[in-house]
Amino acid sequence: MNQPRKTLKNIPTDPANFMKEAIRLAENARGTCSPNPFVGAVIVKNGKIIAGGWTQKYGQDHAEIQALKKAGKSARDADLYVTLEPCAHYGKTPPCTDAIIKSGIKRVFIGIQDPNPLVNGKGRQKLLEAGIEVTSGIMQEEINRQLEYYLCRIQKGRPFILWKAALSLDGKYAAQDGSSRWITGESSRKMVHKLREEADVILTGIGTVLKDDPMLNVRLPKPIKQPLRAILDPYLEIPLNSQIVHFLPEYKTAIFCARGKENSPHAEALLSLGANLYPVTAKGRTLCLKEVLGILHQQGFYLVLLECGSQLASSFFSERLVDKSYIFYAPKILGGNKAILRELDLPDLNSAIHLKDITLKKTGEDWLVIGYPVYS
Amino acid sequence: MNQPRKTLKNIPTDPANFMKEAIRLAENARGTCSPNPFVGAVIVKNGKIIAGGWTQKYGQDHAEIQALKKAGKSARDADLYVTLEPCAHYGKTPPCTDAIIKSGIKRVFIGIQDPNPLVNGKGRQKLLEAGIEVTSGIMQEEINRQLEYYLCRIQKGRPFILWKAALSLDGKYAAQDGSSRWITGESSRKMVHKLREEADVILTGIGTVLKDDPMLNVRLPKPIKQPLRAILDPYLEIPLNSQIVHFLPEYKTAIFCARGKENSPHAEALLSLGANLYPVTAKGRTLCLKEVLGILHQQGFYLVLLECGSQLASSFFSERLVDKSYIFYAPKILGGNKAILRELDLPDLNSAIHLKDITLKKTGEDWLVIGYPVYS
Repeated sequence: MNQPRKTLKNIPTDPANFMKEAIRLAENARGTCSPNPFVGAVIVKNGKIIAGGWTQKYGQDHAEIQALKKAGKSARDADLYVTLEPCAHYGKTPPCTDAIIKSGIKRVFIGIQDPNPLVNGKGRQKLLEAGIEVTSGIMQEEINRQLEYYLCRIQKGRPFILWKAALSLDGKYAAQDGSSRWITGESSRKMVHKLREEADVILTGIGTVLKDDPMLNVRLPKPIKQPLRAILDPYLEIPLNSQIVHFLPEYKTAIFCARGKENSPHAEALLSLGANLYPVTAKGRTLCLKEVLGILHQQGFYLVLLECGSQLASSFFSERLVDKSYIFYAPKILGGNKAILRELDLPDLNSAIHLKDITLKKTGEDWLVIGYPVYS
Repeated sequence: MNQPRKTLKNIPTDPANFMKEAIRLAENARGTCSPNPFVGAVIVKNGKIIAGGWTQKYGQDHAEIQALKKAGKSARDADLYVTLEPCAHYGKTPPCTDAIIKSGIKRVFIGIQDPNPLVNGKGRQKLLEAGIEVTSGIMQEEINRQLEYYLCRIQKGRPFILWKAALSLDGKYAAQDGSSRWITGESSRKMVHKLREEADVILTGIGTVLKDDPMLNVRLPKPIKQPLRAILDPYLEIPLNSQIVHFLPEYKTAIFCARGKENSPHAEALLSLGANLYPVTAKGRTLCLKEVLGILHQQGFYLVLLECGSQLASSFFSERLVDKSYIFYAPKILGGNKAILRELDLPDLNSAIHLKDITLKKTGEDWLVIGYPVYS
């Protein structure tokens, strides 16, 4: 991410405020350490923060370890604040609990318990057994929100789905002639590229590929990563001269098709160019979304950014799979019948999908509405 | 209006700030003095405001007169700040210029010149001829906006059209079953009633009357007035048992129909119940909007609040008649095909109608987008 690094600040001596600082430092790791959750930690001695850390790239130090290394011997008898329960198992790195115990930390303040079955209370237990005082559940609401992608993966067993749309203020995603480039302004589009950079997967349908011929990559000066491009293409219609295919050597790409379609010459051509093909169950032109998400989940992906046409977005809503929505509105009226989510069949006002915890942001001439769908 | 009265404030000694105070006082008269424009005035002596006023009910004191009366003899050698050029003609009240000259005011600061042909520079001229120093054009942008209804009347020769819509965040005005009560929350609906209270006319189509059976009145504790209810009903289909007809004795109502329809027994029944009928030119099911607005203009109406279905709103946009839009968005998704302005036929992105000077406001759970359409 190109945002400035969060560095340590002087803050008042209050447990919630120390945790706030750990939450703030965790943001340094957002989008950089997948499939590890991005965590923040601070070490406090005599009411002052003496060190801080955040999760490093996958396979490198966790937040606690980074903070402990910075604190060195001063960690003895100090307090550790960490947003997520420290791990107690061997993964790519040794258990954080061992390092904490060894450092002489006296008290540990944990934001939220890690629901990952490999941890889930075991980290806390190990610290307690070593005679460390442990307090859990500090600023849980904020941390649950901060780690929403990770928690979805563990709790729902599928990636977190973030739906993004760019609309006119009368709710149209395109003009009458089908054109949609660009409805929103530069500032909104830049935000979308930042979202893409944070995402593990950008998912779209074959309709969008055929209509817009998108590249589905991150176009920022120095992107920290390029997400997987996932295309739902039941009949394997993706043209060999599309941008997606053209950039196959550069960006990882997964094409999901109906079972049986993977044996065609077109499929072989796509495979030879470097695409990954995943045959899944289909009903007519509709692929089983849960099967698609299951495959992405197995591959360790957290955040799927859904950038697709009205029909596929309607299917995701209809199957209650959208976890968060980012809707950009441009200050213009398009008229016509290209209304977003018109294929979403809800009979009456009582069956409306509400969005909670709405955030409203100006972005250039446009504005952005962020919210969480609640399925009744 | 139920808002608290604006009273005089201590403000720094700066000409623009005195005019700001006059602008602020003018708001006391908004919606109360039609067909007079709502104007504010302050009298300043030795760098201090000694009196202020605003336009009283039609036929009573203008802003300048109210301020002069409050200042009494202290007005001699003082400065007068007034948002709109003082009138120099006999209307319901004598010319304000005469009273200003008589009071001994030394200098007059005018916000904007009054484009009304009865004034239009004549007020200024009369003051200059009496030896008063006159400065014009202070905070013009703000005052042009404040008096937008009045200026539209004078400059475009028709009432100002304010379109109001209540939408889901996917741009639907109703659920699949047609129900739309209520998409937005209580706070937004209260704002609509305040808009209605300010309006001179609430205009709708027969489609909305048949579907929703609305009362189209102001439902606030002590409304300062009830606007005219105007129904576009080409074939005179309004049912005698509708709420509109039921409340004919209480609220003034104008029904516009196609020429020839005014001679039917149904028309006679409506007339006998107190409705006013206006036959206008029609093309099929479509009445000539400019003719309708011409009739409302002749009757001295300034602000028409357009609260109608998608089809009539589309016609107003297509004829470039909407001057300002108020769109309330509720944090919910309705899906389906009831998209607003789908009958508005704009071929491509380049022909989109832009909205300028966007204001974004939270209103309860909803948010309101206010803007001014720019027709290319």
